Amino acid sequence: MQLRENLITETGWDIVETRFDPANITTGGSNFLIGNGYYGYRGTHADWRANSQVGFLVTDTYDKADGKWKELCNVPNPLYLQLRDAAGDLSCLTEQPHSYRRELNFRYSRHRMEASWKRQAGSITVNEERVALRGQRHGIVQKTVVSADHDCWVELNCGVDTEVWSLNGNHFAHCQPVGARDQGEAAHVELLTVETGLPIVVGHRVFLDSQEVTPPAVDDSTADLHFGGVQHEGVLYLRAGEPREILVFAAVYSANDLRPPGDDTRQRCDQEVLSEQGTLRAALNDALREMIEHGYGMLVTESKKIWDRIWDDCDIRVSGDPVAQTLLRYNIYHNIIATPMHSERLPIGARGLSCQAYQGAAFWDQEIFNMPMFLYTRPEIARNILRYRFHTLDGARAKARELGYTGAFYAWVSGKDGYEICPSHFFVDVLSGRAIRNHFNDWQVHISPDIAYAVFLYFDVTGDWDFIAGYGAEIVFEVARFLQSFVYYKPEKQRYELVRLLGPDEYHENVDNNFFTAYQARYVLGRAASLFDELMIKEPDCALALRQKLELSPSDRDFWQDVSERLFVHKPNSSGVIEQFDGFFRLEDITPQELAKRLVDPAEYWGWPNGVAVETQVSKQADVCQTFVLHRDAYDPQIMAANYDYYEPRTQHGSSLSPPVYAMVASWVGKQRAAYDYFIRSAGVDLFGTGKAFSGGTFIGGIHTAACGAAWQVVVSGFAGMRHQGQLLSFTPRLPERWSELEFNVKFRGDRVGVHLGRRVARFSASEDNRSVLHIGCAGQELALSPGVELVVELPPPTVAHSERKR
Amino acid sequence: MQLRENLITETGWDIVETRFDPANITTGGSNFLIGNGYYGYRGTHADWRANSQVGFLVTDTYDKADGKWKELCNVPNPLYLQLRDAAGDLSCLTEQPHSYRRELNFRYSRHRMEASWKRQAGSITVNEERVALRGQRHGIVQKTVVSADHDCWVELNCGVDTEVWSLNGNHFAHCQPVGARDQGEAAHVELLTVETGLPIVVGHRVFLDSQEVTPPAVDDSTADLHFGGVQHEGVLYLRAGEPREILVFAAVYSANDLRPPGDDTRQRCDQEVLSEQGTLRAALNDALREMIEHGYGMLVTESKKIWDRIWDDCDIRVSGDPVAQTLLRYNIYHNIIATPMHSERLPIGARGLSCQAYQGAAFWDQEIFNMPMFLYTRPEIARNILRYRFHTLDGARAKARELGYTGAFYAWVSGKDGYEICPSHFFVDVLSGRAIRNHFNDWQVHISPDIAYAVFLYFDVTGDWDFIAGYGAEIVFEVARFLQSFVYYKPEKQRYELVRLLGPDEYHENVDNNFFTAYQARYVLGRAASLFDELMIKEPDCALALRQKLELSPSDRDFWQDVSERLFVHKPNSSGVIEQFDGFFRLEDITPQELAKRLVDPAEYWGWPNGVAVETQVSKQADVCQTFVLHRDAYDPQIMAANYDYYEPRTQHGSSLSPPVYAMVASWVGKQRAAYDYFIRSAGVDLFGTGKAFSGGTFIGGIHTAACGAAWQVVVSGFAGMRHQGQLLSFTPRLPERWSELEFNVKFRGDRVGVHLGRRVARFSASEDNRSVLHIGCAGQELALSPGVELVVELPPPTVAHSERKR
Repeated sequence: MQLRENLITETGWDIVETRFDPANITTGGSNFLIGNGYYGYRGTHADWRANSQVGFLVTDTYDKADGKWKELCNVPNPLYLQLRDAAGDLSCLTEQPHSYRRELNFRYSRHRMEASWKRQAGSITVNEERVALRGQRHGIVQKTVVSADHDCWVELNCGVDTEVWSLNGNHFAHCQPVGARDQGEAAHVELLTVETGLPIVVGHRVFLDSQEVTPPAVDDSTADLHFGGVQHEGVLYLRAGEPREILVFAAVYSANDLRPPGDDTRQRCDQEVLSEQGTLRAALNDALREMIEHGYGMLVTESKKIWDRIWDDCDIRVSGDPVAQTLLRYNIYHNIIATPMHSERLPIGARGLSCQAYQGAAFWDQEIFNMPMFLYTRPEIARNILRYRFHTLDGARAKARELGYTGAFYAWVSGKDGYEICPSHFFVDVLSGRAIRNHFNDWQVHISPDIAYAVFLYFDVTGDWDFIAGYGAEIVFEVARFLQSFVYYKPEKQRYELVRLLGPDEYHENVDNNFFTAYQARYVLGRAASLFDELMIKEPDCALALRQKLELSPSDRDFWQDVSERLFVHKPNSSGVIEQFDGFFRLEDITPQELAKRLVDPAEYWGWPNGVAVETQVSKQADVCQTFVLHRDAYDPQIMAANYDYYEPRTQHGSSLSPPVYAMVASWVGKQRAAYDYFIRSAGVDLFGTGKAFSGGTFIGGIHTAACGAAWQVVVSGFAGMRHQGQLLSFTPRLPERWSELEFNVKFRGDRVGVHLGRRVARFSASEDNRSVLHIGCAGQELALSPGVELVVELPPPTVAHSERKR
Repeated sequence: MQLRENLITETGWDIVETRFDPANITTGGSNFLIGNGYYGYRGTHADWRANSQVGFLVTDTYDKADGKWKELCNVPNPLYLQLRDAAGDLSCLTEQPHSYRRELNFRYSRHRMEASWKRQAGSITVNEERVALRGQRHGIVQKTVVSADHDCWVELNCGVDTEVWSLNGNHFAHCQPVGARDQGEAAHVELLTVETGLPIVVGHRVFLDSQEVTPPAVDDSTADLHFGGVQHEGVLYLRAGEPREILVFAAVYSANDLRPPGDDTRQRCDQEVLSEQGTLRAALNDALREMIEHGYGMLVTESKKIWDRIWDDCDIRVSGDPVAQTLLRYNIYHNIIATPMHSERLPIGARGLSCQAYQGAAFWDQEIFNMPMFLYTRPEIARNILRYRFHTLDGARAKARELGYTGAFYAWVSGKDGYEICPSHFFVDVLSGRAIRNHFNDWQVHISPDIAYAVFLYFDVTGDWDFIAGYGAEIVFEVARFLQSFVYYKPEKQRYELVRLLGPDEYHENVDNNFFTAYQARYVLGRAASLFDELMIKEPDCALALRQKLELSPSDRDFWQDVSERLFVHKPNSSGVIEQFDGFFRLEDITPQELAKRLVDPAEYWGWPNGVAVETQVSKQADVCQTFVLHRDAYDPQIMAANYDYYEPRTQHGSSLSPPVYAMVASWVGKQRAAYDYFIRSAGVDLFGTGKAFSGGTFIGGIHTAACGAAWQVVVSGFAGMRHQGQLLSFTPRLPERWSELEFNVKFRGDRVGVHLGRRVARFSASEDNRSVLHIGCAGQELALSPGVELVVELPPPTVAHSERKR
């Protein structure tokens, strides 16, 4: 099934390209990424190097090399393998192959590449398979098979390549290639990062036709380092029809993997570093020994088993639309491998582990876009995500203090420890060459209530009171405390106001009473006040301890309540439209298409302070409509429709967060065709993406992980219309026209339900293991679904919005 | 006495240049301006035209021709006179004269120019004298004498030249030259402005050796209009040694001069326009007839008498420093001719009537810089200035309403009616070519409390309760009402705050709790609350009527009181320095000199949003120190000194308002040399000015009238140390080193006192006409000064600041 030019799917679990196109090096590197949440390995060929954006990005290695950008490290590439025969390199970079096929299998995070080159005597073929291991998260394996239809010699050059791609400076103050000292030891590279002095080790052991050929230790000073790492050169004799196989077992460790949580950011003395390096070497050698004992095949099989269980929870099956099916899985896959599922102390990067862009850091995307999929499929991951926000409270508190507030003002760009790492200047005015002072790091206030909102959402979906008492309440109270210090009271109008905001629509900075922010703040403060009471009733000891720790008093709680009741939140006007912020309607009314004509340079930033959109109603992304997604039942469909109709034509979708929001709202207001188009646009942002990899000299490529998470959300919240009120989990399916069936599993309050939506009937099947009766709403009915039971509901014919009928 | 290159003074009442320098056309045009507060006539030669920036700017002719800039009209030039002999034009523009002298006499607003050209047969001399009449404010006269030392023919061409200079578009939709229809009628040009359709008429009558030669009426369609106006050509026979004289009597009227106040901005129908044009013609003819009856000599003599009375009130005499003496009078002169002393409904333009720059409109300059001189010398003019603010309350109310406030938010740029005429975009980012959205028109909040402050200052100095009851209270209450709607309460900090301001330092927009603004607001609200009570006690009827009209209640008054007590105003830190606004001390600390090196283009705007100063502590002008000038006794000298020392090196003086403020504060803290240097810098901004006439394509030349008013202030408040507390008017003289004596008269609470400050003694002499005993403080003594009495006080030796001693 063709997906786009030079991209097909064979099984709905894969993407395949059949022609090597050098123009796809950057996007293919991201789209064909493999990984496991601990690392990401870009979709590149084994012989590629830094200038082809080979990336082996490792979690928890934040470092700042250029004094400005703190980002994750790309470590040296232990899978480097170059082959050449008498006619030249067996490399797509130097010679277009005669036949070519590469495949990403996203069921199992497996990358395969097969290429053949014609020679005078016949042809020669290279077959590469690379698997990110799910079981041994430090490990990665690669199998290369080279064969020819004629006898020939092939030179082989493999090693740990230190010539790594890095966006913002060289992160390695120390970078020491070390050969294998003993039998059974890894050739490896020892690294120390520039800013933090973090020891990292990355190494491999290499086998040729089952015989180890790992490069031996050499005197460092004389090591042949012509490609900058430990390396092994040799020559293979290839008989016609007798393939030869090179297996690479590789692994990577950073000292942060071994340090006690909370003691990981401290700078170490030389003695400690030496000791850590020794420990890391041992860990590396142990891991590789264990992997080799298992063997390539077994490692891959074990990894598959884990993936099968993940897909059992997370997969969505669509009938009638193989393109949508593939896109959906592609997005779910990338959301999974972007997420450090092994840890509760690491963020999900806005580009996951696909590249260094966006600093490997969490934005609000994490809670609002990445998390929902996990919340309903693997709630323990959602809990990890929120615990990360608990562990980073000190960073959020520091930011609040620094800006003159109290409580927790979460970082707009949040790395390991939650301290703000968003630089004050990151865009350049391309017309003047001057850096722009954007205020993402100090005015984008909604990040804090967004996280508190996610805590309540998590609780509402899981009923996990222990989390609330142990972690969530502290987040929520500190966010409430922050809002308390942020809010102003306007005596003239007898109401509270939020001043100087940057809402989801980032083109408009310095705005007041942004609807989204105000709605979130009001919601969170109201629930915080209730939680304050509830905690006191249910767990007085815990409540009192927290009150003491946070220096909270009942008067604070009363203040939250008062603000939640009297905070100004824009109301729908007589046409049902809600003003995005004070004065928005007075801005110039123009479409993004018209506005684009005012650009002098296509790379101009549209927003604050002097971009073309600033004095217009053109928004970067959903803002009012974003609110509806988080508060599904707050406004009736007429209001949602009025706002969709108003804002949609004024939205530029300059953020990948925008199309999925419009997809969901379109679906809810009965605009099925628009909903589907926005779904494809959103889910295809990377795979079909025409977006630029570079903007203003800065690499912004990589996988849009929020859109990946959102794909699941659009289908389940949007097309299946899933929502919950108290104990009731209900569905209002509005499937895209060509979809005959939609199937997925969700977890709700600890129990699991299989959802099977057809065009005429919906089937709901409770797991055998469920502990309680689920309350399912559908087509006006409320079903009590006992464990192990399946119920069928007849669906009403779909309604279509008037505006869509006319098309 | 040399003032600068090519500029001397002969009497201390004049400036004289002795060489024609075409590079001075623009600055000389302003510096040699004559005028009378109704019009300004630029210092140009009679034969110059639009491209040499001939300007005849008339008050109360606001018009917008380009859709953006509302400005005063330059009307056609009725003094145009071109002479040529056989060898060519007798014009400095075409031929450098053999001898040249021009003089501005500022005692009598008289411009004289004498130039001689060498010919083969001898030399020929043109002598031009032009006087702005103080008695007949519509009238202006010019006497040209041409003579030669050999017989020759001279061609003469004179008329009302319609080729006028205009900054922003052609203001005349209709521009009809009309010759004299009858004997004794004026040749004139009838005008209708573009935006407002305002009829204007400007005309003249011309005499050659006492014989009228005014151009007769001709059929309009065949009029010889080669220079674009009514004109007269002729040929004079010049005998050696027998000069011939050309007298021009000219006048200008706009319909606004005749319309009833308050009904002047209404658009008129054709019938009304026709009728107004008739009335204007009659007025013009009547005025010219009367002027001619008086005769040139008598007109000039009458004008001088009025000037003598003005100077008796306003002059300051300095001994020992002729340069300072001349500068001072030059500034006082320009402050006088910039001020529409005949009207209480017109603003003082930031460039007076010297050119169209700054829209002929009032800024805060008017009350804070122009007004004080009048307040202490001609308090009725200060009252006019404040009544103008009363008459423009509706404009200020409209601005407040439009921006979501109540009360009166005065226009940042205030023309005739007080509606905001400051465009949203006026600077251009020269690097990108994009217009900048500055927020002078919506965030520069201090304008309103500044005006209310001036009302209280006027009252404190004059004791004019009738003004307060009749005008001032309404201004004050409406300003308080505005602040009431503007202020926020910060519950977390239990204080009121002012958010999103643009203080006097205009490089930093969008700042919170700007010290100057907050201090002014607090002061005004406190006094407004007291006035509310006082008015109720003294004039209950008036108070109740005003309360009803403004819908004010005692709870509003209590709110003002509360805000005045709990508004956050930055306090001096441990070093005595007051933070200019929240976060100012966290900005980059750099000098203006260093910062200037970052400019890519010298024409770059330094300020908001992206200029080089925005993220630094470099300020455009005095801000914290400005506060001290308005609240002389609020902080002790140590605090003032600490702030002077901190802010002075960080101030760029990008505004002419800055040096006089630093001059005064320097004087108060004992830095006499710095005070004198800043005084010369301030008073010399135009005469010694090296400032550019154009910036970013916009003409910003012309006379800096605020600096003109400030010159008086620096000497009287600064060097003489005049201040008042209740009934006590005190002096702490600290004369510049070279000044042996300083003399001036001031009025205080209706009485007049002559102040004569020497280096050893001070003499104070009360006018015979005084009604009460004046209380004068000096050198630690308090003198009771009865009418007609002179008292002498011995002065202590001066103290000098430590930092100055080290120099």
